[in-house]
Amino acid sequence: MLYSLLLLVCSTSVFVSVFRSESGVLSLSSALAPQSGHKVCDAADCSSMKEHTVFVQAEGALHYRSPPPVGRGAKHLTTEQWTEQEEGRSVMDRLLRKCRIRNQLLRQCLAEGLGVYVMMLFGCGAVAQVTTTRETMGQYLSINLGYALGVTFGIFVSHGVSGAHLNPAVSLSLCVLGRHSWFKLPFYAVFQLIGAFLAAATVYLQYYDAIHAFSGGPLTVSGPNATAAIFATYPADYLSLWGGFLDQVIGTAALLLCVLALGDQRNIYVPDGLQPALVGSVVLVIGISMGSNCGYAINPARDFGPRLFTFLVGWGNDVFIAGGGWWWVPLVAPCVGALLGTLIYELLIEAHHPPSPPEA
Amino acid sequence: MLYSLLLLVCSTSVFVSVFRSESGVLSLSSALAPQSGHKVCDAADCSSMKEHTVFVQAEGALHYRSPPPVGRGAKHLTTEQWTEQEEGRSVMDRLLRKCRIRNQLLRQCLAEGLGVYVMMLFGCGAVAQVTTTRETMGQYLSINLGYALGVTFGIFVSHGVSGAHLNPAVSLSLCVLGRHSWFKLPFYAVFQLIGAFLAAATVYLQYYDAIHAFSGGPLTVSGPNATAAIFATYPADYLSLWGGFLDQVIGTAALLLCVLALGDQRNIYVPDGLQPALVGSVVLVIGISMGSNCGYAINPARDFGPRLFTFLVGWGNDVFIAGGGWWWVPLVAPCVGALLGTLIYELLIEAHHPPSPPEA
Amino acid sequence: MLYSLLLLVCSTSVFVSVFRSESGVLSLSSALAPQSGHKVCDAADCSSMKEHTVFVQAEGALHYRSPPPVGRGAKHLTTEQWTEQEEGRSVMDRLLRKCRIRNQLLRQCLAEGLGVYVMMLFGCGAVAQVTTTRETMGQYLSINLGYALGVTFGIFVSHGVSGAHLNPAVSLSLCVLGRHSWFKLPFYAVFQLIGAFLAAATVYLQYYDAIHAFSGGPLTVSGPNATAAIFATYPADYLSLWGGFLDQVIGTAALLLCVLALGDQRNIYVPDGLQPALVGSVVLVIGISMGSNCGYAINPARDFGPRLFTFLVGWGNDVFIAGGGWWWVPLVAPCVGALLGTLIYELLIEAHHPPSPPEA
Amino acid sequence: MLYSLLLLVCSTSVFVSVFRSESGVLSLSSALAPQSGHKVCDAADCSSMKEHTVFVQAEGALHYRSPPPVGRGAKHLTTEQWTEQEEGRSVMDRLLRKCRIRNQLLRQCLAEGLGVYVMMLFGCGAVAQVTTTRETMGQYLSINLGYALGVTFGIFVSHGVSGAHLNPAVSLSLCVLGRHSWFKLPFYAVFQLIGAFLAAATVYLQYYDAIHAFSGGPLTVSGPNATAAIFATYPADYLSLWGGFLDQVIGTAALLLCVLALGDQRNIYVPDGLQPALVGSVVLVIGISMGSNCGYAINPARDFGPRLFTFLVGWGNDVFIAGGGWWWVPLVAPCVGALLGTLIYELLIEAHHPPSPPEA
Repeated sequence: MLYSLLLLVCSTSVFVSVFRSESGVLSLSSALAPQSGHKVCDAADCSSMKEHTVFVQAEGALHYRSPPPVGRGAKHLTTEQWTEQEEGRSVMDRLLRKCRIRNQLLRQCLAEGLGVYVMMLFGCGAVAQVTTTRETMGQYLSINLGYALGVTFGIFVSHGVSGAHLNPAVSLSLCVLGRHSWFKLPFYAVFQLIGAFLAAATVYLQYYDAIHAFSGGPLTVSGPNATAAIFATYPADYLSLWGGFLDQVIGTAALLLCVLALGDQRNIYVPDGLQPALVGSVVLVIGISMGSNCGYAINPARDFGPRLFTFLVGWGNDVFIAGGGWWWVPLVAPCVGALLGTLIYELLIEAHHPPSPPEA
Repeated sequence: MLYSLLLLVCSTSVFVSVFRSESGVLSLSSALAPQSGHKVCDAADCSSMKEHTVFVQAEGALHYRSPPPVGRGAKHLTTEQWTEQEEGRSVMDRLLRKCRIRNQLLRQCLAEGLGVYVMMLFGCGAVAQVTTTRETMGQYLSINLGYALGVTFGIFVSHGVSGAHLNPAVSLSLCVLGRHSWFKLPFYAVFQLIGAFLAAATVYLQYYDAIHAFSGGPLTVSGPNATAAIFATYPADYLSLWGGFLDQVIGTAALLLCVLALGDQRNIYVPDGLQPALVGSVVLVIGISMGSNCGYAINPARDFGPRLFTFLVGWGNDVFIAGGGWWWVPLVAPCVGALLGTLIYELLIEAHHPPSPPEA
Repeated sequence: MLYSLLLLVCSTSVFVSVFRSESGVLSLSSALAPQSGHKVCDAADCSSMKEHTVFVQAEGALHYRSPPPVGRGAKHLTTEQWTEQEEGRSVMDRLLRKCRIRNQLLRQCLAEGLGVYVMMLFGCGAVAQVTTTRETMGQYLSINLGYALGVTFGIFVSHGVSGAHLNPAVSLSLCVLGRHSWFKLPFYAVFQLIGAFLAAATVYLQYYDAIHAFSGGPLTVSGPNATAAIFATYPADYLSLWGGFLDQVIGTAALLLCVLALGDQRNIYVPDGLQPALVGSVVLVIGISMGSNCGYAINPARDFGPRLFTFLVGWGNDVFIAGGGWWWVPLVAPCVGALLGTLIYELLIEAHHPPSPPEA
Repeated sequence: MLYSLLLLVCSTSVFVSVFRSESGVLSLSSALAPQSGHKVCDAADCSSMKEHTVFVQAEGALHYRSPPPVGRGAKHLTTEQWTEQEEGRSVMDRLLRKCRIRNQLLRQCLAEGLGVYVMMLFGCGAVAQVTTTRETMGQYLSINLGYALGVTFGIFVSHGVSGAHLNPAVSLSLCVLGRHSWFKLPFYAVFQLIGAFLAAATVYLQYYDAIHAFSGGPLTVSGPNATAAIFATYPADYLSLWGGFLDQVIGTAALLLCVLALGDQRNIYVPDGLQPALVGSVVLVIGISMGSNCGYAINPARDFGPRLFTFLVGWGNDVFIAGGGWWWVPLVAPCVGALLGTLIYELLIEAHHPPSPPEA
């Protein structure tokens, strides 16, 4: 336990140092960006999946067009109300205000990291609970629900800041579609990985007693008291490596197909507040229908981060050897699948939408 | 496995050739239709279940009436924004734009096919998971959830383009009610069938290792290692053929009763974004309450497409012989049931709504 | 089976004759009511739980106030659109138009009957599936979900016409609160009972083979092959009659407490389209937390209608004798509980809302 | 049973006397507060987590800005309608009107008490059902659902009046953030405790026969027939006290992290009507992923109220001795965890939102 605490501290310091160096790297762009508090929508490009035209100036008065009760808009105040509110702020609020980070990429990375952290905290936690209680306090459906709701609240936590990709394969697809910047891709991926790593560390801390009572000796990757599958995915005995690769491709393609449909407003309008629950439901149904072969990783960060953690903390080399060297499949196959799913949705549905004309 | 891959390629080519011939058949109507990109709503008649009056011109300014945050409306832009956006498009986006199909029926058929494909990918996948793991990774409720969420995301994928019938019996009812064109009915039905067929092929590919490890020999329709029920429905031992017919009639009647209520805005207003989840819930509760007799097909395409696939791929004639020649029941009974359900809802509820008057 | 079919026909004729006689009884009020199709809101008093001010005339233009995208409002059309739509109607639509019933009470009774029918079709169906498959295709949670979703879709079917009480105890509470007419109470209750009776008949038809295969002999109320509990509720062995009475009182009080909160717009605004799912969730959680003692009837019509059916069809006198003459408890206790729950909510929450002032 | 009835009466009288004394204590502030019925929003400060700008005066007409269909606004009427409605009130309504409490703190305390009561009625009820039926009518997932839906409807019952904290640790965090008054904190906490205590009493009444039939003798805290865990939480055998403390800290931190994200409109806009179900889902996923170690109390009132009840009613000193003096952990750790979760969300997400500017 000491070791893992140490590790936690150590990885946190890495986390912090990455922030700093990055602030350095990005200082140019952040210096160029407007710093004024009066910029209406500095988070504009982060909601990468949708572009709303929120305000339309009409005869001197602001009227809401499309989604009238938008979050950000709902907080706009008249000058008087603004001043009044400013005065009523709590001490805590003012302290927090001093920590404010203005660099947008850093904010987005923090949000992605926290989003994946929340997702994996609930997801891995559910597997830990089912495994260590030998299915007396939860069954396979609980694991599906754990990941589904984990995704849901991971999105709620990060959506407004980073667009809530939570998955390098999703970020990659959005880059290919031109809806996300290629420059940001590696930053997103690294912070997604860090979030998953830290979540695994937290679950290990929380279930430390339970995992050691369950395994009753050394931590193992296979056998009746195996616990490595709490953190990363391993294929079923019958599965061939290429069968597993295909499974991950199909699973991630299904994920992207549905997620792109949910975000395609010319297909069906889904309010922002419903999106997280629906994306969570996609993950739920993938777990229900494609989970038994090799545990539906469908996300390189979700699988590799915790696998790295188990490697470092005590499960050893087996985490990379098991399943015939399975570890690279959930890294590569989801990326292939994401592109395939994107292609199918674009070619069969989105490319054929009639173009929206300019208004007369 | 080779065989099935071959089959997939073969059926895809059929798919493609159908597209082409159809484009030919329909060239007249598509030539007559306006081709300009400036047509505001060429998908107008596809949202067959509801007609919104979205814009009302008032004193020179456009104001939203009923559902203000509609999807399509939300993308309308001023001329400047339009040009700007046009310039910022990605390479990918421009390539996709070149593949654009303008023929509406073809777009609708593709959407129906993809919708049923998604529905069956998750539905059959859930049965495959429960069957091949002998209920250790999912139980009957998982199957219900798999089909329910499959329907939900099948609707999300196709709703804006084809109206998301996903079921020939539903299309038939809408034709009878005058809300869908009789001309389009056979096209819809064929593409729904193709979607289900291809989904069965995909599930077979994904669970190839699992199915063969489970059956441990030839693929069978009955017995302890039977796997045919992963794809098509078979009646319980105790069930008479007419009992099964009645079951399918009642089940599909219940489906239509609820779906028509959900679409009847004079009864209760349900936002577009909630409809898919609610229709999925109808299928969930039908599976929970009417699934044990003969597996709630309640959809000719859902049952016959996969049955054909199992016939071709290795389960043989038994798929048509089993259950006393059961195969025709899920083809005929749902159509009868759909009409019965429609009649009940119309006669007890919808026919009696007070007519909406013209505005003064 | 013949017998039950006969019964179905017979009860349907009762259903029809009740309609007729009632139309007679009510002819005066319906004669006095305006018959013109131009009346904007003849269903105004049916949405008894909420009163919206939908339209406010302002400077010659109609603007939506509160809930802009209301169902009925969304269908209002300009005169031209109206004529155009009229011409485009299908034959079916015109035929249905001829069957139109203008008597509001009759429409409401039909809606209540159909709503309870849908609720019980799914609810009893779920119990039948779990019972006759000996929990292999569903467990207790499926039954909870069956009733919950049954309530949800029962509300969707009837909400806009009758307010979707679906429960004589709820109707009673609304009468006491002055939100429903005492005159209508007996009509509502009778049609709720008829709906439950007919649903029990349908479930018996659908599960005829299954029930007889399961019981393997005479239909029984107790013992290992008992099937009476598919339709009506029976108390657990350990339960005293007064313990069961208290259970029903607490359960129905909890129901009303939550339902009144959901309908209280000064507490929290819940869109119409969400209400059915939330009321269904109330029934779900009551089943999860208060179902084991005596089966959470919490509804006189839900319990007595099916009990009567089982009495007539072959289970005999035992349905009234079992559980120490249990049958009257789910008739009386829910009414007491509904009033208690109403009183608690009103006294602790609703009575203290600040009054809404008239607009300046 | 007599004893517990007596206890119920006794605790109710305490409840009432607290009301009175408090009215006394607060008479000054209530005398100073405006008593007129024309005050538009005397519940303004209770919706502590959000501030909407509901009305904006524009050219003499009131137009809704942000959330147009707000609950309270929807009830505003013109003077004529007002008078008319006043005359049409039922007798019951007028009687209730006489009981109206104008003191806002008392109203809020009543709402918090009732909210926690509803939450615990369903939550403890679900545990009672699963325990006393030895998992034949519900499993661990039912308990998770019971608490999740309990939280949902607890929020629905109290949201508009008290802001629905339902948890002293949540109230504490909101005080630290300056979104809730420190003065009100002890009142909220006491009424939350009372609500939980009374709910435990009600569940004991409802399951009196079941609990005594199950335990078959004296009520015990441990052993095969233990029933104390129906009411309060106890740690698993393998868990160290500090492991349990850490578990509670992590669990409550996760709760606050998600709840703050749901309430942060600059992150993602969630309509009021969806919030209760989403907060319930947070509790669901915490139960699914963090429930096996020590029963996810994550709420001092939820645990201590029922523990006190079991101590008084017959389980004796063991409820405080069991688990190595476990009882204080769910009192202290959730407060620490709530502050930690608040800090993480504020430092990683909320502090960095760009400030909303005053409108031009």
